[in-house]
Amino acid sequence: MLGKNKIKFIRSLERKKERRESGCFLAEGSKLVGDTLDAFACELLVATPAWLQAHREARAAEIVEAAPEEIARASLLTTPQEVLAVYRIPHRTLDAAAVEERLTLALDTVQDPGNLGTIVRIADWYGIDDIVCSPACADLYNPKTVQATMGALSRVRVHYMPLPEFLSQVRVPVYGTFLDGENIYTQPLAERAVLVMGNEGSGISAEVEPYIARRLFLPDYPEGRAASESLNVAVATAVACAEFRRPK
Amino acid sequence: MLGKNKIKFIRSLERKKERRESGCFLAEGSKLVGDTLDAFACELLVATPAWLQAHREARAAEIVEAAPEEIARASLLTTPQEVLAVYRIPHRTLDAAAVEERLTLALDTVQDPGNLGTIVRIADWYGIDDIVCSPACADLYNPKTVQATMGALSRVRVHYMPLPEFLSQVRVPVYGTFLDGENIYTQPLAERAVLVMGNEGSGISAEVEPYIARRLFLPDYPEGRAASESLNVAVATAVACAEFRRPK
Repeated sequence: MLGKNKIKFIRSLERKKERRESGCFLAEGSKLVGDTLDAFACELLVATPAWLQAHREARAAEIVEAAPEEIARASLLTTPQEVLAVYRIPHRTLDAAAVEERLTLALDTVQDPGNLGTIVRIADWYGIDDIVCSPACADLYNPKTVQATMGALSRVRVHYMPLPEFLSQVRVPVYGTFLDGENIYTQPLAERAVLVMGNEGSGISAEVEPYIARRLFLPDYPEGRAASESLNVAVATAVACAEFRRPK
Repeated sequence: MLGKNKIKFIRSLERKKERRESGCFLAEGSKLVGDTLDAFACELLVATPAWLQAHREARAAEIVEAAPEEIARASLLTTPQEVLAVYRIPHRTLDAAAVEERLTLALDTVQDPGNLGTIVRIADWYGIDDIVCSPACADLYNPKTVQATMGALSRVRVHYMPLPEFLSQVRVPVYGTFLDGENIYTQPLAERAVLVMGNEGSGISAEVEPYIARRLFLPDYPEGRAASESLNVAVATAVACAEFRRPK
């Protein structure tokens, strides 16, 4: 039985202020909870009797058995699922030495929670371990972002810090995509690098631009037609990452 | 002044049945309406006085000046905009001869309206003029799809027909993406071809698979890690189209 106060608490995790104060975030659905239960400290697991029966190995500080109607009252989804989990937000530290050895993503004011979640999923697919987000990016623990990662947030580490602070320390080449950049297919792409992607509407900000030595453009086809003004930022991230990871 | 009946009619276009009966669809927002007004027959344009003042060239069978609060009552968006347009759904014919000369996309049960809209936008970017959708795909004129195309639906033609019927007539190579396909980076990709993308959860259906001679796989990195189970279908479409369009 899921009490009123717990329902209220769970629903409050939609808001950043409440997430910051409680140090918790919400994940919903069997696939997502299954993918994240081993990766985060679970404070509260709410599930139907059938789900708990099928997942006897599930561990949490508190487990509440609830009817689907009760879960629906706590859920932030349009189509509530049979399980939801409240996790503790982990503390992530960026390993500066590792950045010198790998491909790292940096996001400059990517504001849409769904886009951020999709980018985390793309990073996971392309073996990118760290994403550095500017403070104005969407919050990783926004429930919409969490859901859009499809569980990838348990593997990819997302850090928040001013990008000038991060990029000024980086010794590997820093790439970014611009509408007036060089065609990505004609440029050498380093294996150890930072790739910066910009805001949905305005691209990479004037504040971040000076740190980007290698300006890339993802060409349309036939090149220069540019019927649509741009690719969605998550889609552009995928196309760019695929090219970085393409066998040379 | 926007009357009750018009508000009801506009809102009814959220449902496929009403779209089919009226032969109309809805587009909202200045950017989207601006991009589509020349491409479709506009039955009804509803806008604020300020928008109409700034767009004197806008033509429609009926133009209604309305206050923002009135537009908000008719709008299907969370954040209503200053203009919305009701267009006549056009009749599209697939030019079979053109398919032999180009790259064409075919979608097998892509059910999410947002994914379909994003794919239309990607097709536009990569110079793909036609998309053939199986009848079980999301409807192009679903307002969520329309909004997600960002106006690209005025340039890309989307057709609905059973894919076996379409693919059995095609003489260019037919490609599709499968988890057990051949690495796309090791395969010759024809310029004139059909590329089939499958359903969000289950991929390409058993009914369509026999028509696909060239099975492709979009590799993760490092290859075979496959931490996430897959890329989102729109993201996968972009990565595949980018590779088809990549300079050889």
